[in-house]
Amino acid sequence: MSTEALGTVTLVGGGPGDPDLLTVGGLRTLRAADVIYTDHLAPDVSGLVPETVEIVNVGKTPRGPATPQEKINELLIASARAGRNVARLKGGDPFVFGRGGEEVLACTDAGVPVKVIPGVTSSVSAPAEAGVPVTHRTLSQGFTVVSGHVPPGDPRSSLDWPGLARTNTTLVILMGVKHLAAITDALQAGGLAADTPAAVVVGAFRPDMQVLRGTLSTIANETAAHGVRPPAITVIGKVAGLDLKAHSEGPATS
Amino acid sequence: MSTEALGTVTLVGGGPGDPDLLTVGGLRTLRAADVIYTDHLAPDVSGLVPETVEIVNVGKTPRGPATPQEKINELLIASARAGRNVARLKGGDPFVFGRGGEEVLACTDAGVPVKVIPGVTSSVSAPAEAGVPVTHRTLSQGFTVVSGHVPPGDPRSSLDWPGLARTNTTLVILMGVKHLAAITDALQAGGLAADTPAAVVVGAFRPDMQVLRGTLSTIANETAAHGVRPPAITVIGKVAGLDLKAHSEGPATS
Repeated sequence: MSTEALGTVTLVGGGPGDPDLLTVGGLRTLRAADVIYTDHLAPDVSGLVPETVEIVNVGKTPRGPATPQEKINELLIASARAGRNVARLKGGDPFVFGRGGEEVLACTDAGVPVKVIPGVTSSVSAPAEAGVPVTHRTLSQGFTVVSGHVPPGDPRSSLDWPGLARTNTTLVILMGVKHLAAITDALQAGGLAADTPAAVVVGAFRPDMQVLRGTLSTIANETAAHGVRPPAITVIGKVAGLDLKAHSEGPATS
Repeated sequence: MSTEALGTVTLVGGGPGDPDLLTVGGLRTLRAADVIYTDHLAPDVSGLVPETVEIVNVGKTPRGPATPQEKINELLIASARAGRNVARLKGGDPFVFGRGGEEVLACTDAGVPVKVIPGVTSSVSAPAEAGVPVTHRTLSQGFTVVSGHVPPGDPRSSLDWPGLARTNTTLVILMGVKHLAAITDALQAGGLAADTPAAVVVGAFRPDMQVLRGTLSTIANETAAHGVRPPAITVIGKVAGLDLKAHSEGPATS
């Protein structure tokens, strides 16, 4: 195979779901692609690219059909080897639990040129959409983003929850709905105060977005009582007590 | 004053410096603005907006002239009250050490309508540009972003460094060049292994970007020896030992 015939792979961070939060460079890449492999949580771009661009959904839905990561890597590589320009569209940022690093390594190992265009991460923007800034002067000098897809103490978890309980940063938990009770218990056991504000943002940037508010000791029950389903993002820390949107969208006073 | 005459304020996350990493909605807002108040670390958008858009730099440069935050708030409010559509352009994301929350509250208190458009945060994208994914399967199930503008133990710091040392997440330190020796000492005192990989990304997305690599015990000396100046971002954790760009931009093999 000649190198002239080789296509490229570009990982595009699609942001948290609103197509307006795609990057300028990301959208340009999508429009110029021959094929887009897209994910469950990526924005719907079908109306934004030429009709000639093929869009293939390889998304992993919770409890639904999924394309294994190995297979996705193979698709990216095979398409590039067939001379096609491939865009790999992901929700949020490709390196925030997006398995983007694995895709980059697979392409590199196969000799396929690969680039990454960062995106707006849901870990910051979903709380913002709920009126919660992940950092705020006097309240938080940092934030920690973790995956809650396995519970504390699970052998597959490499996180140190007692450590996480005491950093004094805002804690943002992605994929943590299922194990929220175990997570909030572990944080309290680690010394984080039971009355620490907490919020759960469900379906951020969707028309039916929902925000539940409570404290570290109440938020898991609250979430269960509302039958919350993914995608949802949990924020724990003093900033979760803020609601910057509370008054900002009302009528202006003079 | 009639409410009809009131303008609006929109905080726009400008991303890490490359104008291609502006969001689609952010760029549209900038183009439609009457005035843009921009920051030191925001991308240069002068070539991207109509010539009629006024651009005012209110950036805080390290050791250079700065517009106090109070004064920035006043400018935003006064411009909106004069009926102008105001864009407040920030480097990265408005809520990641951008003091965006304060500006939102100031506008809200003044009765000025205010919106926020999230941006690509440098805390994730600058490491990515250096080939370092902040999360990566088997290496990191989370990341922590903190401000290093005051050293550990300083009364103005609310961070718990022994806690940060043991979370087992990737640690990303913004504004930490000046105090890097104190920070890496505190992390080692907290139990983080001296041979933990570390990298410093200097001037990410600039043509003269520089990446220094070492370990928790060597990176501060390395940084001092190279006379590194802000802006620089430090990444500490197993992922800092990766360089996803090492082979990805070479010629394709067949």
